[in-house]
Amino acid sequence: MNASEFRKRGKEMVDYVANYLEGIEGRQVYPDVEPGYLRPLLPAAAPQEPDTFEDIINDIEKIIMPGVTHWHSPYFFAYFPTASSYPAMLADMLCGAIGCIGFSWAASPACTELETVMMDWLGKMLELPEAFLAGKAGEGGGVIQGSASEATLMALLAARTKVIHRLQAESPELTQAAIVEKLVAYSSDQAHSSVERAGLIGGVKLKAIPSDSNFAMRVSALQEALERDKAAGLIPFFVVATLGTTTCCSFDNLLEVGPICNKEGLWLHIDAAYAGSAFICPEFRHLLNGVEFADSFNFNPHKWLLVNFDCSAMWVKKRADLTGAFRLDPTYLKHSHQDSGFITDYRHWQIPLGRRFRSLKMWFVFRMYGVKGLQAYIRKHVQLSHEFESLVRQDPRFEICAEVTLGLVCFRLKGSNKVNEALLQRINSAKKIHLVPCHLRDKFVLRFAICSRTVESAHVQVAWEHIKEMAADVLQAERK
Amino acid sequence: MNASEFRKRGKEMVDYVANYLEGIEGRQVYPDVEPGYLRPLLPAAAPQEPDTFEDIINDIEKIIMPGVTHWHSPYFFAYFPTASSYPAMLADMLCGAIGCIGFSWAASPACTELETVMMDWLGKMLELPEAFLAGKAGEGGGVIQGSASEATLMALLAARTKVIHRLQAESPELTQAAIVEKLVAYSSDQAHSSVERAGLIGGVKLKAIPSDSNFAMRVSALQEALERDKAAGLIPFFVVATLGTTTCCSFDNLLEVGPICNKEGLWLHIDAAYAGSAFICPEFRHLLNGVEFADSFNFNPHKWLLVNFDCSAMWVKKRADLTGAFRLDPTYLKHSHQDSGFITDYRHWQIPLGRRFRSLKMWFVFRMYGVKGLQAYIRKHVQLSHEFESLVRQDPRFEICAEVTLGLVCFRLKGSNKVNEALLQRINSAKKIHLVPCHLRDKFVLRFAICSRTVESAHVQVAWEHIKEMAADVLQAERK
Repeated sequence: MNASEFRKRGKEMVDYVANYLEGIEGRQVYPDVEPGYLRPLLPAAAPQEPDTFEDIINDIEKIIMPGVTHWHSPYFFAYFPTASSYPAMLADMLCGAIGCIGFSWAASPACTELETVMMDWLGKMLELPEAFLAGKAGEGGGVIQGSASEATLMALLAARTKVIHRLQAESPELTQAAIVEKLVAYSSDQAHSSVERAGLIGGVKLKAIPSDSNFAMRVSALQEALERDKAAGLIPFFVVATLGTTTCCSFDNLLEVGPICNKEGLWLHIDAAYAGSAFICPEFRHLLNGVEFADSFNFNPHKWLLVNFDCSAMWVKKRADLTGAFRLDPTYLKHSHQDSGFITDYRHWQIPLGRRFRSLKMWFVFRMYGVKGLQAYIRKHVQLSHEFESLVRQDPRFEICAEVTLGLVCFRLKGSNKVNEALLQRINSAKKIHLVPCHLRDKFVLRFAICSRTVESAHVQVAWEHIKEMAADVLQAERK
Repeated sequence: MNASEFRKRGKEMVDYVANYLEGIEGRQVYPDVEPGYLRPLLPAAAPQEPDTFEDIINDIEKIIMPGVTHWHSPYFFAYFPTASSYPAMLADMLCGAIGCIGFSWAASPACTELETVMMDWLGKMLELPEAFLAGKAGEGGGVIQGSASEATLMALLAARTKVIHRLQAESPELTQAAIVEKLVAYSSDQAHSSVERAGLIGGVKLKAIPSDSNFAMRVSALQEALERDKAAGLIPFFVVATLGTTTCCSFDNLLEVGPICNKEGLWLHIDAAYAGSAFICPEFRHLLNGVEFADSFNFNPHKWLLVNFDCSAMWVKKRADLTGAFRLDPTYLKHSHQDSGFITDYRHWQIPLGRRFRSLKMWFVFRMYGVKGLQAYIRKHVQLSHEFESLVRQDPRFEICAEVTLGLVCFRLKGSNKVNEALLQRINSAKKIHLVPCHLRDKFVLRFAICSRTVESAHVQVAWEHIKEMAADVLQAERK
């Protein structure tokens, strides 16, 4: 395919994309296919001779779309949102064309420098403490990671290296293994599974701190664990506080937990994967109070800030902690500027070596929406979740299971887990809307997350009417 | 921005992309900017009100392009290629529009299933042993990772878990720390820095095996290290063999190393990040002989197989080894099909949770080029590197430093490292072409990698004339 055919096919694809997103409401949100549906529809091997573009574009509707879960349908209320906006898609086209691999400053200076500045822009939108910004000569700064999982892992690994170095400086006879064996990381029992996974990868113990009745980590429970572990000869070194948990969007108490981390010399990482986007609104910024105690902070603009996946924003106060953990400089990656002291080689900030020019997406989205446009978007989602919450509260058969702060409503039928499991199954089998469940303590709970960029009050109303119908069926079946 | 404005702007962006790539030869391959160039060109913070699309598109040429290293210029001969093709870009547009996050089968069945089938297609193109393919009920299979670094890390972590489980099954009193402390991984001293980094992350020793005069790992040196380490009470568990090293595209001797790994029960991972694409050509397939001894195999279609970054292809013989390492199943990620035994939840195969619909790029590229088109592309690059090699060999002032097998030529002026460093600096300062160096033993060497999709014999000729001119200047300066 040459440039002139790309001009033609690219424009057809732009129309296909626009048609898909304009018409997405008409597609069934969750597919009908069974596992293994796709293989019989494809040849057993790649073709020797080229297929035509027409064949391929036709196969999208025949083969791909029947198996797609439509995350951007206004009837998709599952998981958390994943971002989608036209400006981000335009930027991604440009990113693909430039196609540089920005592992070092020299590998494409614009790729590195735009990222540093965009992370400062975003940090300022959140009113992050100055220490997290790169500015012209700051010790901190931001980096785009692929996912919050990677950000948590990088923070844990950096903290692990730091504590090993500190203890070995104090007691040179200590081996790394002798230290690692005693290291303990902590998070709330509501933290995302990726935190536990980071502990497994890092080879350190991870202890779950029992959350309080609002599903928040409090200082008393953390302190108790720290004292017990220290008394047992273990070495606490790392705490993950979650702002906006995946189960119910609860918030760990940063203002309590932060000071104790600082006092005890523990690395405090904040995972605000979903909720972080809301902090650009002054009325939600208080939820981030206490970030000043943290060593690293992360949230996902690719969830709720209209920047298509992947774009996970991570800041650290001391970039040397991150880059010090794994800095390796083979000759083929050295360049003449790298010792100049004020340039950034992002490969030292992340697990992979390669990286795309993802900051273009941030630049396009921030400029084409403006801060006010982004704030309006967040506010609309929060308003819709409160609208759903009030519908649930008006029906005495249902209960709200956790405080509704942002765009997630946890609710259930008053009654057994079994009846709620039946309700969810009925809803997801009908495929008119799509939800996923969670467990809050021993309760099986339905999560209603405002997800789509195009979801409106009317969709929420339709969803609620549908849920009520399904509930009536389930309750009637139960009475039989 | 609504759909109708996206139709307009998207088509303008298609033209911008086509113009950029059609005209890339006219752009200086390496930028003139100094570190810090970009920040003064941008406002200190994001705008409150939206900017127009015209402002942004104009700023691309004013602000971004002056700082771009043009990886797809036919005068770019640095690092290794990074893939770029129009079919991949079209697929990426579709990927952005669907915008699903494919962490589980249910999260978008098409996303998971197309990936499994495309990895089988690609495995068949490489004639991988059947055990690596998923087929309908295989124990193995493929997954798209973000980068070869992540593939190596996943393999190392899986191997670590496996050996810990085995040793604890034999001796239940052994702690994880007591085992990890003794674990040793091995790679050639020519292996990529990401292998060493995987060892650091995994907290295990990594030993570099001295390569032979062809920069290949041989069984004698490996065996010697294994015996020495076992005698010292250490536990060898993991070997990375590289096919196509980053420094000089050398090949570890798989047929020697493989059997010893199997005999000793060591996990053998093959990193063929760059070279792997060539194995789709029958005449290069012999370089992969011995893959049957491996537990995992990885290469990057996003380097040399026309699938834009990121798309790193990894296969394992036993998927349970990979998924067993970190399987965590919180309620919000459970779905009704996951225990059916023949579906795949790719989140267990990788470090991050989220993942894009990247197999669309493979599908578009494989179909629009056909296997023959892809083979022709590889062959053209190899032919161009041999053309450059023969130009170098005709000039008695120069020497070839390593066997030229695929698309990389390592060469230097006969003489001191200093004169070669001066030559490289002069070349990269002139910015007519772009190269990076490497060290082979104590020699400073220039790497000439065939990179661009559009590079032709004429560009190679121009590059060589230019290198000769620069060399004459350097040699003349030296004589003064």
